[in-house]
Amino acid sequence: MLSKNQIKDLQSLQLKKIRDQKSLFIAEGSKTVLEILEQKPEIIKDLFVTEDFMTKQGEALETLGLSTVLVSQEELRKISLQPSPSGALAICHFLTHFEKEPNPTASISFFLDDIRDPGNLGTIMRLLAWFGHSTVYCSPSSCEVYNPKVIQASMGAFLRVQVVYRELNDLITEKKIKNIYGAVLDGRSLYTEKFSHGLIVIGNEANGISDINLELLSEKITIPAAQANSTESLNAAMATSIIAAEMFRQKLGS
Amino acid sequence: MLSKNQIKDLQSLQLKKIRDQKSLFIAEGSKTVLEILEQKPEIIKDLFVTEDFMTKQGEALETLGLSTVLVSQEELRKISLQPSPSGALAICHFLTHFEKEPNPTASISFFLDDIRDPGNLGTIMRLLAWFGHSTVYCSPSSCEVYNPKVIQASMGAFLRVQVVYRELNDLITEKKIKNIYGAVLDGRSLYTEKFSHGLIVIGNEANGISDINLELLSEKITIPAAQANSTESLNAAMATSIIAAEMFRQKLGS
Repeated sequence: MLSKNQIKDLQSLQLKKIRDQKSLFIAEGSKTVLEILEQKPEIIKDLFVTEDFMTKQGEALETLGLSTVLVSQEELRKISLQPSPSGALAICHFLTHFEKEPNPTASISFFLDDIRDPGNLGTIMRLLAWFGHSTVYCSPSSCEVYNPKVIQASMGAFLRVQVVYRELNDLITEKKIKNIYGAVLDGRSLYTEKFSHGLIVIGNEANGISDINLELLSEKITIPAAQANSTESLNAAMATSIIAAEMFRQKLGS
Repeated sequence: MLSKNQIKDLQSLQLKKIRDQKSLFIAEGSKTVLEILEQKPEIIKDLFVTEDFMTKQGEALETLGLSTVLVSQEELRKISLQPSPSGALAICHFLTHFEKEPNPTASISFFLDDIRDPGNLGTIMRLLAWFGHSTVYCSPSSCEVYNPKVIQASMGAFLRVQVVYRELNDLITEKKIKNIYGAVLDGRSLYTEKFSHGLIVIGNEANGISDINLELLSEKITIPAAQANSTESLNAAMATSIIAAEMFRQKLGS
């Protein structure tokens, strides 16, 4: 049974300010929690589970030596952000387990310029995990990785893809990056490029790449559309998925 | 000024039952409404606009001879599904303007098996519009195209991509389709296929392709991942975007 104060404390983690103060975030849902238990149980500070989850996973929890708090479905609903929360909710420490950043002079990384939609960021992390990326760069104005909606949409990929916040300009200087590709509507066809190293810059959902970052691009690329100058558009996550897939196809030599 | 009854009537269109009864749906947001005004103004039954929208678009509205109802931001909020509605909301007649369906023995179409998330369906419509598809097939259990969240996510693509609900089995028989590709986790690499005609079946977000439809596939295809047998997954919209892009790349001969 959770006290009113405990519930209030847990709910407060829905605010970025409190997450930053405490270096804690919420990860919830049976699937996500099971993935944490499997891959990084040490990040869990507190674990709240329903009786149903406990019945199914009790043994695993015991093996890990994790102390868990049994909660009712109603209590879970109170501390959850989901309309119908499922099974388990973990309070986790901020992630520090990632190895060093990739070397953008030897491989390709993505840079998200002012991405704002948490669902998009989580989806892109999930996608980049599929294609073996360990890092995604974001401008400092972008959505926060510990936003519960990012964690949710990433479907566990937050455990494998680190998000590094950096100004594009600083990143380029610091890592001496030569090839800066920007995904725009009026560039060269994606399929005329041979990608070997550098950065792919993906713009904001509504406004594309910012003016200041447009000037830093060495090459503009476009995903060919069926009709030139059409009214169609692609969202940031779709554009990223198509470009990341094409880069991976080239790597495979298919 | 809207009466209480008018507001109630408009709000009732948020329910599928009422939409079906009246053959009407809601399309909202300045961008979407402007696209309807440009491409298919004849589908608009009623148009509600804020003063700000009227000031900017009054001339266009007059040219079209559309009668519009001026509403306050507060009234717009009441009839809108958006937390911060923007500018205009149109009540539209169901779409009947589409030409005949494509011929799947001469080109490739997508079939969505039990797609449930309205955001995913809308996103896929937007994506298919980009690659020049005029139709997407959905199993009858799939999400309804006139769901306001589908319309919203499609970003106007609902005007150009028709959604046809059909059982996969019936569609195959009726159109005598030979190549039925299914996107699965354990198929042949997407990049070993040369696509010329047929159907691509995309599975449900949580459960993939249904057992009954799995048996109808003539070929299973997979988007290669960096790590075989990894815990990663792709969502339906991302998988569709990668496959549709690859088909279009082949068509371009890139």
